[in-house]
Amino acid sequence: MSITRPLGFRAAATTAGIKPSGKSDLALIVCDDPRPLVAGAGGAGGGSGGGGGASIQARRSSAAVFTRNAVVGAPVEIGREWRGAALRGGPALRAVLVNSGCSNAATGEPGTQDARATMQAVAAALRCSADEVLPSSTGIIGHRLPVDRMVAKIPGLVAALARDKDADEAAARAIMTTDLVPKSAHRELEIAGHVVHLGAIAKGSGMIAPRLDGAGTHATLLGFITTDAPIAGLALQHALEDACRESFERVSVDGHPSCSDSVVAMASGASPVKMMHEGDPEFIVFRAALLSLCQELATKVVRDGEGATRLFRVEVKGAVDNASATAMARCVVDSPLVKCAIHGKDPNWGRIVTAAGNAGVRFDPAEAGLTIGGVEVYRSGVPTGVARNDPKLLAAMIADPVDCVLTVGFGRGRGWMIGCDLSKDYVNINADYTT
Amino acid sequence: MSITRPLGFRAAATTAGIKPSGKSDLALIVCDDPRPLVAGAGGAGGGSGGGGGASIQARRSSAAVFTRNAVVGAPVEIGREWRGAALRGGPALRAVLVNSGCSNAATGEPGTQDARATMQAVAAALRCSADEVLPSSTGIIGHRLPVDRMVAKIPGLVAALARDKDADEAAARAIMTTDLVPKSAHRELEIAGHVVHLGAIAKGSGMIAPRLDGAGTHATLLGFITTDAPIAGLALQHALEDACRESFERVSVDGHPSCSDSVVAMASGASPVKMMHEGDPEFIVFRAALLSLCQELATKVVRDGEGATRLFRVEVKGAVDNASATAMARCVVDSPLVKCAIHGKDPNWGRIVTAAGNAGVRFDPAEAGLTIGGVEVYRSGVPTGVARNDPKLLAAMIADPVDCVLTVGFGRGRGWMIGCDLSKDYVNINADYTT
Repeated sequence: MSITRPLGFRAAATTAGIKPSGKSDLALIVCDDPRPLVAGAGGAGGGSGGGGGASIQARRSSAAVFTRNAVVGAPVEIGREWRGAALRGGPALRAVLVNSGCSNAATGEPGTQDARATMQAVAAALRCSADEVLPSSTGIIGHRLPVDRMVAKIPGLVAALARDKDADEAAARAIMTTDLVPKSAHRELEIAGHVVHLGAIAKGSGMIAPRLDGAGTHATLLGFITTDAPIAGLALQHALEDACRESFERVSVDGHPSCSDSVVAMASGASPVKMMHEGDPEFIVFRAALLSLCQELATKVVRDGEGATRLFRVEVKGAVDNASATAMARCVVDSPLVKCAIHGKDPNWGRIVTAAGNAGVRFDPAEAGLTIGGVEVYRSGVPTGVARNDPKLLAAMIADPVDCVLTVGFGRGRGWMIGCDLSKDYVNINADYTT
Repeated sequence: MSITRPLGFRAAATTAGIKPSGKSDLALIVCDDPRPLVAGAGGAGGGSGGGGGASIQARRSSAAVFTRNAVVGAPVEIGREWRGAALRGGPALRAVLVNSGCSNAATGEPGTQDARATMQAVAAALRCSADEVLPSSTGIIGHRLPVDRMVAKIPGLVAALARDKDADEAAARAIMTTDLVPKSAHRELEIAGHVVHLGAIAKGSGMIAPRLDGAGTHATLLGFITTDAPIAGLALQHALEDACRESFERVSVDGHPSCSDSVVAMASGASPVKMMHEGDPEFIVFRAALLSLCQELATKVVRDGEGATRLFRVEVKGAVDNASATAMARCVVDSPLVKCAIHGKDPNWGRIVTAAGNAGVRFDPAEAGLTIGGVEVYRSGVPTGVARNDPKLLAAMIADPVDCVLTVGFGRGRGWMIGCDLSKDYVNINADYTT
């Protein structure tokens, strides 16, 4: 189980005919723990819990981060509005309706109206307000959603909501585009004697290099995270931003941030632990679990990158600051020449050094060095003389991930990124994606 | 004829065993008009001319622009030193020694010594000073030059110097790396009753997205331009920077600026026209010819881009300034998703709009529009509804180059870039370049 493992969540998925392939393309995730809150009850797994008279509504919170692309889809615009309102005391999310096959981006005001029509339909079926529903879309850009077909499916989706492994798997599949495998993760941790759950599903394969606001991501990455921990809204927002910065923002498949990248977190508050706020010791434990969950998902996304056969990790050390180091690491993982060298298991390390040199950050090559899989190939600006066919170097290039550590000076700045190789399949997949 | 078409230049090429393929890999271009200057003589084509007592040395000038990559090859370091000295009144170039097969980059101080040894050998053979010789290298990074083999070839190269079509063609071939075809261009223009010539050769196929200093370029682009016009040194430097900004800097094969990008211009002063300075009316005519020459070569470079089958041109209009517009156009031509769509003749125009959205420049999609080959697909932030299989749209996608015009607002900023498609051959070529 993943997204419905935490108490208070149900999910369902169906086929609304958005994808030409006829595969499932519409998922609904609902946060509406139907059980009454009982003060003092609680415990691991199945038990419902009470918050000392606090209503379940008051214990619910949500957070989201969205693409920084200047062009965004209608769902991202609506999501930003929702988030702004939520941070000013507006309602948390009751539901997220996610479709694949059409991103509802570059569709202008008509696209916004389409998204709102689907929100209304979900709100009517769940008997909640439309501003408690978030739409999320991924797929082809510049096409309208088939709203009528989607709306027609919503009563059935709501009727099918369930809290089990099948529901989670169906939702994870329905949000896929060029993904080859569904992606999910979960974490279980103990806080104040109670077991707290985190669950998540994600999709992403191409147009992946998330740069999220608040945080900073590239690609159509969609991530949906659920937890039964009760967390104050602003604290959840900050925790999500920080976690994304060190996970989804650290991966790139093709360096092309999408107009739809979104990561949404929903906390049901159904666990009986007391509400967590920033600075609480319990919250530090929760944040570590959230980060680890996001890193697992981010790695799964780049692992399933379009055409990817192997991963590589680039760490840059010794820069003046972390931002410079990360910018250099990003230039390396996004260089098509480096990606082809990784694909060909070719220790053409000059491409790595020069790719870092294109980040717009000055560094002195005389202070630079590079190791690949621990094999030092470049030191103080000079090749170490390791032979191209050195068995250790060849082994380092065959590894998965290939591990590159670039030193650019004596500063404290560090940064890292994970990328994937560039194969002919990437071209196959993308030369006729819409056709 | 190309580089030796202008009076005062000779060229030769040979095989020094730098390329494992055994193809020619060493070229020498010399500016040393051996004929005496005769006052008052001149005219089209073959005539030598006089500068009213000015020595040929005083009429000679040179200029150069180099990569902005933080990591540069030894030849670029030496070239920057030469340029600094030249701009302070130091000597113009007598010769450029260009090798392919090894970039002599990421080789530290030993690489610099290697380059200087080749400069000394050329200077000895030409009886000039080593600081009048510029080395230029392209090829694998992080490997040492086979200096002894190169030096051994120099007397023969000097003996073979010639001013004819064969010499030009041989030089253009010797500087090739993954290029499929040699690239050259020439211009002839009349200034004050005299015919003035410009000639050029260039190489570049991968690691191409020149960002030149003074100007701004990515890739291993090497360009060598000759002219018999007499031009003041600083004026030639400025003219070269301006021409590169609107030519080589406007093309990208893979968005990876090389550590070796260099464009060098040498003016022999052998034409009898009077010395040209900035602001002279004749110089405006010369600059236009230089720009046109560079644009022809830049287009030839991207046309021969690794794996490229077709070109596309992206123009961005309506931005707040030209730099913003150019940054957006660059994001579009460098997006692997856009490049694959061009390859697949797939009108997946949302990728173009969102690629522009990743330039870090804010724009309002409601003011945005896109035409492909004159077919409007997106207007005021909304799809125009042109069918994907519309015959005009299909024709626009089959065109070469595919012509995309993106409007992002009502500002005066404009910019353009030319890119090429991404094919499986790019992966083939780059997955085992060194092997």
